[in-house]
Amino acid sequence: MKMRKNAVVLSSGGIDSTTAMAMTRDQGFKIYSLSFDYGQRHRCELAAARRVADYLKVETHLVVCVDMTAIGGSALTADMKVPKGRGMAEMSSDIPITYVPGRNTIFLSYGLAWAEVVNASHIVIGVNAVDYSGYPDCRPEFIAAFQTMANLATKAAVQEGRRIQIDTPLIHMTKAQIIQTGAALGIDYGLTHSCYDPPGEGLACGRCDSCILRRKGFLEAGIEDPTRYVP
Amino acid sequence: MKMRKNAVVLSSGGIDSTTAMAMTRDQGFKIYSLSFDYGQRHRCELAAARRVADYLKVETHLVVCVDMTAIGGSALTADMKVPKGRGMAEMSSDIPITYVPGRNTIFLSYGLAWAEVVNASHIVIGVNAVDYSGYPDCRPEFIAAFQTMANLATKAAVQEGRRIQIDTPLIHMTKAQIIQTGAALGIDYGLTHSCYDPPGEGLACGRCDSCILRRKGFLEAGIEDPTRYVP
Repeated sequence: MKMRKNAVVLSSGGIDSTTAMAMTRDQGFKIYSLSFDYGQRHRCELAAARRVADYLKVETHLVVCVDMTAIGGSALTADMKVPKGRGMAEMSSDIPITYVPGRNTIFLSYGLAWAEVVNASHIVIGVNAVDYSGYPDCRPEFIAAFQTMANLATKAAVQEGRRIQIDTPLIHMTKAQIIQTGAALGIDYGLTHSCYDPPGEGLACGRCDSCILRRKGFLEAGIEDPTRYVP
Repeated sequence: MKMRKNAVVLSSGGIDSTTAMAMTRDQGFKIYSLSFDYGQRHRCELAAARRVADYLKVETHLVVCVDMTAIGGSALTADMKVPKGRGMAEMSSDIPITYVPGRNTIFLSYGLAWAEVVNASHIVIGVNAVDYSGYPDCRPEFIAAFQTMANLATKAAVQEGRRIQIDTPLIHMTKAQIIQTGAALGIDYGLTHSCYDPPGEGLACGRCDSCILRRKGFLEAGIEDPTRYVP
């Protein structure tokens, strides 16, 4: 019997990471789901990540506490206003204040550590270069540089020749294509959460960058959006 | 008046990071000292890092909680035996079980995030390739790859052209040279702590890799070792 390989999947409980996880599972990997409690104002994404982990029957779901409020510098972790009602052009022209310094670098570093411990051959991250968020640490050139660094960082790679590959299955997909792919794999997007500034339990503001990208994605995919936006 | 530049210095309260910090201060930098509470069994190093920060009058000393026990996989964070009485050849031939998966990758990632927030132009890490610890993430090629990745990861670099430089001032020094340099800068090494497996308050085992390298360093430097080793 062929052994199934292990993959660490970074999970935010949103559309992208959930779809990336479903695609990875569909390829036959055992899933090690990894989420981060980093003091984000939209902490309900952690409940969504847990729902997704249960739904996709992962091997282990781990939530790591990451002390980013001590570091500071972002609207997502500090008491700054999340921008609302921005157009697509505005979103892609600038790095928004919801940028969290070092976030994906820190998240991938934990992913690398856990991948080494659980013998995972892959780390999967749902970054995406098309519906561009404006974050520097979501770009293909950043991921490629992280891969080069990772190949030199671990005992697994250096002593055992066991390199850990960083996969970005969504990198060239639009939000609409991502949603269509996940829907075809049976994902119920009602389990997921995207809003940066949720106005209440189970609700989404509909006007932050994340909500705008989500709404537009469902519209373009021709799939009904299960999200409850406040009017 | 010329503005003093800011540097984030990773501090473990040991000889290397303390010397690196003194050298950085001597170059005129304002120091942002960064330590990690990662569930290490030798947590008294955190008290040492605090003593060093006070002694060198740093701008800010920040301790970040890093959830590495959840990740596991090391003798320094789990209930495994720390190796004792190893010779230098044995130490440099193998990656020891005190290796913590992803440690310097995670630490430098936090350093990068904090450097961006406090407008630091440099991150200083006291790694050293001569008295080689056997850790893959202490080697110059790892640091160089991290630098390349860091140049692509931050808003500071991508939007403002403000790259953050990773400095390894000790990389080509022996432990004896490090101790001589720090002593010349007035460091009291009695403030520092190295032992991986301290047998009691203010004591060192004298037989773990870290103690062996420390003792050898003082001996070769011709400087009295202020450490209280158990007999």
